[in-house]
Formats: sequence, C-alpha cells, structure tokens
Amino acid sequence: MAPAETKALLFDVFGTTVDWRGGIIRAGRELEQRRGSPAPEGVDWAALADAWRAEYRPSMERVMRGELPWTNLDGLHRASLEGLLPRFGLAGLGAEEREFLVGAWHRLDPWPDVLEGLRRLRRRYIVAPLSNGNVALLTNMARRAGLPWDLILSAEWVRRYKPDPATYLLLPRLFSFDPKQVMMVAAHPDDLLGARRAGLRTAFVPRPLEFGPEGTAPPPEGPFDVVAGDFVDLAERLGAPAASG
Amino acid sequence: MAPAETKALLFDVFGTTVDWRGGIIRAGRELEQRRGSPAPEGVDWAALADAWRAEYRPSMERVMRGELPWTNLDGLHRASLEGLLPRFGLAGLGAEEREFLVGAWHRLDPWPDVLEGLRRLRRRYIVAPLSNGNVALLTNMARRAGLPWDLILSAEWVRRYKPDPATYLLLPRLFSFDPKQVMMVAAHPDDLLGARRAGLRTAFVPRPLEFGPEGTAPPPEGPFDVVAGDFVDLAERLGAPAASG
Repeated sequence: MAPAETKALLFDVFGTTVDWRGGIIRAGRELEQRRGSPAPEGVDWAALADAWRAEYRPSMERVMRGELPWTNLDGLHRASLEGLLPRFGLAGLGAEEREFLVGAWHRLDPWPDVLEGLRRLRRRYIVAPLSNGNVALLTNMARRAGLPWDLILSAEWVRRYKPDPATYLLLPRLFSFDPKQVMMVAAHPDDLLGARRAGLRTAFVPRPLEFGPEGTAPPPEGPFDVVAGDFVDLAERLGAPAASG
Repeated sequence: MAPAETKALLFDVFGTTVDWRGGIIRAGRELEQRRGSPAPEGVDWAALADAWRAEYRPSMERVMRGELPWTNLDGLHRASLEGLLPRFGLAGLGAEEREFLVGAWHRLDPWPDVLEGLRRLRRRYIVAPLSNGNVALLTNMARRAGLPWDLILSAEWVRRYKPDPATYLLLPRLFSFDPKQVMMVAAHPDDLLGARRAGLRTAFVPRPLEFGPEGTAPPPEGPFDVVAGDFVDLAERLGAPAASG
C-alpha cells in the first residue's frame, strides 16, 4: 500500500520505463536497411547494445570523479560509441549514421504496461522521469512514445548523475515536499537504494526482459516499500483509479 | 509565416497563457466564502490583484541586483502579499489563508483559445512554458488546467529571471538548437524584445483583457516575426494542423 501522503512518483527510464536493448537493436537494423549494404557477416546489434550499455556506468563515473567535465548522456553515448564501432566492423560509419545511432536512445519504446499505468498514476500523483538521460533525450522520447509526464526531471538539471542524492532530492526541493512524500520507481535495486538513502520511498518493478531473453535481471530483493509486477499493478497497489473522465 | 526551421515554441505564462487577474479575484472571493465573514465593506480583490502584480517586476529586480538571495516566485509572491494585506483590510489573515492566496497563482485558468491552440501547435513543435513562475507552480497549473506542455521550463532552472538571456537560451542549449529555431510567444513586448536580443524569433499575441475590462494592454507594435490573434490563430499561421489521430 502507498503511504497516504505520497504526492509524486519518479520513474527510472532506461530499462524500467523503456526497452533500451530492443530499441538499439531495431535502430541498428534500420541503419543496415538505410545503407542497403549489410556488413558481410551481419552486425551483432544485440552485442553492440549490450556493450554500449556496459559503458554507461563507467562513463558517468568518470564525470562524477571529475576526470571529465560535465557531459550529458548524449555526449557520453557519442563518445562510447566511437570506441565500440571498430570492434563491430563499423569503423566506416559516417557522422550522420553515428548520430542516427546516438539518437536511437531518444526513440526507445515503452514496455507494454507503461502508458496505461502512467495515465492511471498521473490522475493521483505527479509523475516524472528521474533519469540520467538528458532533458532533450527524455523530451523527444516522451513526445514519440506518448509518455504523459507532468514535467521532465533529469540528472542534467543538477549536473550530477544518479545515485547522487541531489538527483533524488530535486523534486522534493522544487515542491517543498518531504522526501518521504516522493517515491522512486525502478527495476534496479541500486537506484532504489540511492533513493532510499536520500529519504525517498521506493517501488521495485521487475523487468525480466531488460537484458534480453537470455539475460539476467535483478531479483526484487531489498528493503523496498512496494514491489509491483508492472506499472498497471503499481497503479492498483497505489490506489490510482482506472479510466474515467 | 513560420520560418521553416522553427522547432520549439516557448510561451510566456502570466497574462499570455493564463488570466492571472481573474484567477486572483476568484481566489479572493473563494477565501471570503470560506471565512463566512466578508470584510464589512468587502475587499477590492481586483485592486489587490493589480497591486500584487505591480510588485512582480520590482521583486524580481531585487533578486537580479543581488539585494535578495535567489528566491523563487512563490517566495516573492508570499513576501509581497505580506506588505499588501494591511492596505486591503486583511492584516488578520491566518497563515493558511495567506498560503491559499499564494497558491492561487498555481490555479489560474487559461484563456479560452489556449488548450486548442497548444494541442495543435504541439503536433508540430516542442511546446514549453518559459516563465518566471517556479517549476512547482507551472507543474501544478498545467495539471489543473490540462496544459499539454512537453516539458516545464522556468527561470528557476537557471536562477535568473527574464529578461536575462540565460532564460531564453535554456531550451536552445538543452536541445543544441540555434536560437533562431526557437520562437518566444508573449503578450508583452518587453519579453519578446528580451528573446530577440538572445537571438530567438518572436510571436506577439495580444491579450486585451489581461489588465481587466478597463485596463490597457500593450499594442502589437514591435519588430516581431509573427503577430497572431490568439493561440489558435498562431497554430494556423505556423502551419500546425487541426485535429487528427
């Protein structure tokens, strides 16, 4: 059950709200079709997606340790892609093709329960992403997918990446809410533990397909206030009404 | 006509998108009903609304000159209301009643053309407020009124009030747009001139009733790229389609 005083829900995006792996694979195949010349043995786009995502955390840590100046996620994605292309036989990609792949992170699809769940939750709570994705990325994604956010919250606003407490405290500070009145929703225990350290409530939603059909998603184990099957189930558990006027 | 490359529209809020004067008068009357005891001669809520709004620019200028630390608009509204209450026979208002009035700025109604105009414009352009109102105020207003913003942009994000160029350049910087690809929409020439100095395009939309039936609204005179009758007319002029799927 939701604490009665919950006022806002913050959602992790990559993996929790949208399927980054499927979206990157799809973009890779679109790129091959656009080129009209698939690589001789074909490109393993699933492996490229996994390798690209594996650079995500280390690249943000370089920023947080001060080894890189502030760089938003588009910039980090761009830099890490450069390092990966030769390994996948793609060193010959032109600048426009590289930008097409970097932009694929703006064009990810939500999991099937997301739109209904968010629409319901929004009737009762302020709903916002709280993502390491940059503001333009999250805005473009929301416009394309129809994600009904009330506002776009991003690590970019505070120039600190999750799990820095400044990210989780952004909404409580802007709205003068107690952190306990805000709940972080994620498929990743480390994100929820960061939110919990900042005083927020937490909801775990498993995404068993985040890392592909053979991948391993984290189990719903941890000191979470709520564990829900998906966003629609979360709406049920938090008392957010089904459709009406 | 819109320059073909326009990608985003930024909207002034108080006066351009919503009727602040009517909303403050309505809140005052609601407050009297809640109290059950109207002041003996009645309160001139229209005069209070005008006097409160007259403090708007001077209060922000005190912040911009460094005489006050950063204070968001809720805070400035709260402080200026304190100074006005005795003059209107309202020195006896309790803390909760004062907050009800401060919160009235979150509950303003849009002009009648706004929702249709924004829905149409949003099909073609990124649409966002660019207001001196704080993020929570703009979010609460959008939820209540159904304003279909793609993201909430506020002076609060850069801790500078309009017409500081950092406010107008917020969206171009976040999206890597040329300032010319962004158009500011306002009923106030000074706001549009600030946007123009920062390199944005400008659209003037007159709001003849902003200052009440006997008030005087600024004429549509200035070096604006577009002058439109209202937001629906703006959608027509900018080639934003009427309803569809």
